Amino acid sequence: MKFCSECGSTVTTAVPAGDNRPRHVCTACGTIHYQNPKIVTGCIPVWAEQVLLCRRAIEPRKGLWTLPAGFMENGESAQEGAARETLEEANARVRVEQLYTTFNLPLISQVYLLFRGSLEDTDFFPGEESLEVALFREEGIPWDELAFPVVRETLKLFFQDRHSGVFVPRVGDIRWKSDRRGEYQVRMLDGERG
Amino acid sequence: MKFCSECGSTVTTAVPAGDNRPRHVCTACGTIHYQNPKIVTGCIPVWAEQVLLCRRAIEPRKGLWTLPAGFMENGESAQEGAARETLEEANARVRVEQLYTTFNLPLISQVYLLFRGSLEDTDFFPGEESLEVALFREEGIPWDELAFPVVRETLKLFFQDRHSGVFVPRVGDIRWKSDRRGEYQVRMLDGERG
Repeated sequence: MKFCSECGSTVTTAVPAGDNRPRHVCTACGTIHYQNPKIVTGCIPVWAEQVLLCRRAIEPRKGLWTLPAGFMENGESAQEGAARETLEEANARVRVEQLYTTFNLPLISQVYLLFRGSLEDTDFFPGEESLEVALFREEGIPWDELAFPVVRETLKLFFQDRHSGVFVPRVGDIRWKSDRRGEYQVRMLDGERG
Repeated sequence: MKFCSECGSTVTTAVPAGDNRPRHVCTACGTIHYQNPKIVTGCIPVWAEQVLLCRRAIEPRKGLWTLPAGFMENGESAQEGAARETLEEANARVRVEQLYTTFNLPLISQVYLLFRGSLEDTDFFPGEESLEVALFREEGIPWDELAFPVVRETLKLFFQDRHSGVFVPRVGDIRWKSDRRGEYQVRMLDGERG
């Protein structure tokens, strides 16, 4: 941020009175411009023994498989957003049932809220952001071609829980290790399985 | 938003190509300025049979009681934010244990993530944003002097679950009815109790 979105003057970085963090503050009108994490809301769309995945048509991670998910919009609930993303990316109608994984990605200031959902039919087809949409059984999941760690970790937990028959909501943090974006670290909230 | 935070020119409202919602778009450099919901992260700090509440020293709802909570910051996890807010508002140290309620407030584009936590000691005292900090047993909760519906609904669920002995994570939406801010509507996600 370089300019004030309220008056157009330049902004500086300063710790406002009563605050303890540097913020973007307007040099003219004094408006403080807070920046906060964004929510990515999405869905694990289930059809009997299978899970729907989308192959990404856009960067980042174009060509790799993901769960339908995207930035939550103002004015909607997270579960409405999860259903909307599933419709947009896979033209699939889903009944959202449970908030399953909540993953913090502190290094990029995102929080993923991933819900379990039931597909209402199989008349899905790729949306503009997808190259391909398909149902996968556990043994067919393309583990080496998943787009994001948060998708991999969520699917691992999902199949683990499906074997035990109880889907336990989880909270965890995912952080990449130093310069190697391929390697990452997962820490689950104390007192939860994972 | 009136001016572009990247170049200082005026912004207009338009639906960008490939999008389906009006956004703030810069008339000069073309930057699209997305606005997304904010996360409020907080805690139900528990000490044996009691819950810690803070009496607000600031607007909105000054003088009323609330759970420690505030806007999640970039670079932290939601549970770190919940512990930070508990420290800032009540100078209380808490071990965060479970994501308990996730409440969407679509009318103001906020998502509350409220965790259950255990107080590590009782050496708490009001932070700058609190007039008073105190522990309450269920029968002493000031139900008519709670600051926000989300706090009321979360405490109701908490004590209900404490009686049954099982704390079930919940997702719900809270919407105010028309012009009467005092009255509100709660809708829990299908398939969950509440």
